[in-house]
Amino acid sequence: MKPYKEMSKEELLSLKAELEKEFEDAKGKGLKLDMSRGKPTTVQLDMTMGIMDALDAESDMNAENGMDTRNYGLMDGIPEAKRLFGDMMGGVPAENVIVYGNASLSIMYDTVSRCMTHGVLGSTPWCKLDKVKFLCPAPGYDRHFAITQLFGIEMITIPMTSEGPDMDLVEKYVSEDPAVKGIWCVPKYSNPQGISYSDETVRRFAALKPAAEDFRIYWDNAYAIHHLYEDEQDQILEILSECEKAGNPDMVYEFVSTSKVSFSGAGVAAFASSKANVEEVKKFLTIQTIGYDKVNQLRHVRFFKNLDGMLEHMRKHADIMRPKFEAVLRVLDQELGGRGIGEWTRPRGGYFISFDAMEGCAKAIVAKCKEAGVVLTGAGATFPYGIDPKDSNIRIAPSYPTSEEMAAATDLFVLCVKLVSVEKLLETV
Amino acid sequence: MKPYKEMSKEELLSLKAELEKEFEDAKGKGLKLDMSRGKPTTVQLDMTMGIMDALDAESDMNAENGMDTRNYGLMDGIPEAKRLFGDMMGGVPAENVIVYGNASLSIMYDTVSRCMTHGVLGSTPWCKLDKVKFLCPAPGYDRHFAITQLFGIEMITIPMTSEGPDMDLVEKYVSEDPAVKGIWCVPKYSNPQGISYSDETVRRFAALKPAAEDFRIYWDNAYAIHHLYEDEQDQILEILSECEKAGNPDMVYEFVSTSKVSFSGAGVAAFASSKANVEEVKKFLTIQTIGYDKVNQLRHVRFFKNLDGMLEHMRKHADIMRPKFEAVLRVLDQELGGRGIGEWTRPRGGYFISFDAMEGCAKAIVAKCKEAGVVLTGAGATFPYGIDPKDSNIRIAPSYPTSEEMAAATDLFVLCVKLVSVEKLLETV
Repeated sequence: MKPYKEMSKEELLSLKAELEKEFEDAKGKGLKLDMSRGKPTTVQLDMTMGIMDALDAESDMNAENGMDTRNYGLMDGIPEAKRLFGDMMGGVPAENVIVYGNASLSIMYDTVSRCMTHGVLGSTPWCKLDKVKFLCPAPGYDRHFAITQLFGIEMITIPMTSEGPDMDLVEKYVSEDPAVKGIWCVPKYSNPQGISYSDETVRRFAALKPAAEDFRIYWDNAYAIHHLYEDEQDQILEILSECEKAGNPDMVYEFVSTSKVSFSGAGVAAFASSKANVEEVKKFLTIQTIGYDKVNQLRHVRFFKNLDGMLEHMRKHADIMRPKFEAVLRVLDQELGGRGIGEWTRPRGGYFISFDAMEGCAKAIVAKCKEAGVVLTGAGATFPYGIDPKDSNIRIAPSYPTSEEMAAATDLFVLCVKLVSVEKLLETV
Repeated sequence: MKPYKEMSKEELLSLKAELEKEFEDAKGKGLKLDMSRGKPTTVQLDMTMGIMDALDAESDMNAENGMDTRNYGLMDGIPEAKRLFGDMMGGVPAENVIVYGNASLSIMYDTVSRCMTHGVLGSTPWCKLDKVKFLCPAPGYDRHFAITQLFGIEMITIPMTSEGPDMDLVEKYVSEDPAVKGIWCVPKYSNPQGISYSDETVRRFAALKPAAEDFRIYWDNAYAIHHLYEDEQDQILEILSECEKAGNPDMVYEFVSTSKVSFSGAGVAAFASSKANVEEVKKFLTIQTIGYDKVNQLRHVRFFKNLDGMLEHMRKHADIMRPKFEAVLRVLDQELGGRGIGEWTRPRGGYFISFDAMEGCAKAIVAKCKEAGVVLTGAGATFPYGIDPKDSNIRIAPSYPTSEEMAAATDLFVLCVKLVSVEKLLETV
């Protein structure tokens, strides 16, 4: 394969003509595919239908502590759900866990919102401060950035390395700037790169010396058990105990959910933190709600039973997800390998493949794909304020279409990458 | 019956001795009853167990618009649930409804919290203002007052009349003071008095001329369909359309839930308002959550089918609640009628009976009851800041114990009322 950059103007022009013809043909196929969101496919949702029978009209509706899940009470969740979610987070004790309703994103929003109005463990409410900043490892999760943006929090982009965020930069900002109150992290199979934080990265996080007493690590363990392979699985250190060991017990808020384990539209989410942080949140919960859906918590525990049951279930998810990831990677390798016009990740879990095009090409590639019927996540979405300074990163979400559709969509994608890259190169030769 | 106030000192002293003996006997019975919270009893929860079979592993999980309730999407709820909740609120169009997860209290908290950080339709966020005030008709719901207190909002007590809040006062405060941003209302079978707002009251609400553009009526329609009798039911005017007619379409936030229809621990809650307000909330929801539990919404609609199904179900609740209310009222009438030491309400729906003791007696009565094993809602809880200026109001919640237990608990209650009243009267004779 000849790298595009080594081609002469004539070669590029002739290639462009060829690609343009291919693109016109592709448009004619009338594709209509969505690779934009990390959304489980119907087959995956069907796999969980057994949960609908986990409780029926004859079921004992009491939690293991004898509390009736149908009635008021138990603001912080039923004990067996606290245990299950603690296990899911890598062995967090149940007393450090609070179980919520559907959607961990709501817990994150709620947490930031509470900091705005009430601060953290007695600190000044953020809405009374001139400036509040968050560190945003990027490419990252667009919905994290949307929350901090909504609250007017200044977002500072932190580049990602293959071991997690650039920790030199993180340490510098956190220790020097008291306006830095948080950092968004997806520590395992990160969104969108599929990177898992190395042990050294986690330990450096745990050992941070924040200038702000109310600095917290927002640890969104969204893909804690979302492996693609049985034999090659990433494992990360359990952050709460690492922080405790490092003398920073209160420095982490951890979030987790079953959105991509059971149902995205009817799962259960949980929060974990130190004793002091959990006590503070519970104090608010007694005012904020009369309790989250405990019957759905019970339904989940009765269906999965324990972490082993959950992991067994996740193997079925992996069997569906793996071929889709492989279909994408096969096309990328075959069509773009050695051409020097893009790089991509090979995650061992999670929901995304991250693609870096040549600088200044991402928006044009996404637009071209759309023109021919394939919807990708908007270019820039993986960066704070939706602005990718290099206009390079594209998030590929292979979960929703079938493997065949994924292959077809990726064929179109690589075609658009080639075409846009050639056009870009022609601007300068 | 001789009113206590007409008794001589000697009569009072002899009565006191008699009552004290009775009280010692009562303590010996080792009662252990809870009349403190409006909590459905197990029989009521059992009545709803059919809902657990409304969906099973074989069910079609699509909403009527074809959306898969198990997946992401439909942030504002499934269409059939929006319709059902609109009907429950007295005929609010589905497009004005947003369906949430369990607990309407969370929606109210969330609403106040959003006003604090972002204001209302572009107004100044409340956290940037020196002073924010809420009107609090009292006696009222303690958890409403807890929310506004948490956010440092100044609460102004508004006396209740038999037709609702004192509207002369409400009109005065709302039209004159731009710091007044809201009023807490339970318009039907109010908590704790069971008062339903008269048509005139609702119309005066709809015609308010607020000094603050971001003033809203927080209309907690918690007992919209919670009648005790088939033949005597209160009906209130539908507030959204009244406000629209009066030229104040955006002035109301309405809240409702199935906490006391299906399960308190696993129900569905909803919000309704004008088009502009609903649009604003939806804008936040896209950032705040990936969606509420749509499967539970579907489960509710499949079980109840429509408003008629819900009303039919509420008749069964009434059959359980009515005898308990009547047991309490029978004892109150018999033991306290004509004695001049207390007044009480005779609600036709809702969850509470409100009792007004002689001034300065409520705390002592609640303490005496507790001493003998009957837990009542803390005296003062029905007023802002937990302070009843007259120390007179006591909320009786008859739902959780059985009718027999309720009769026994009320026997003790009236004994404590008599004893504390005699002691009070002896202070001044």
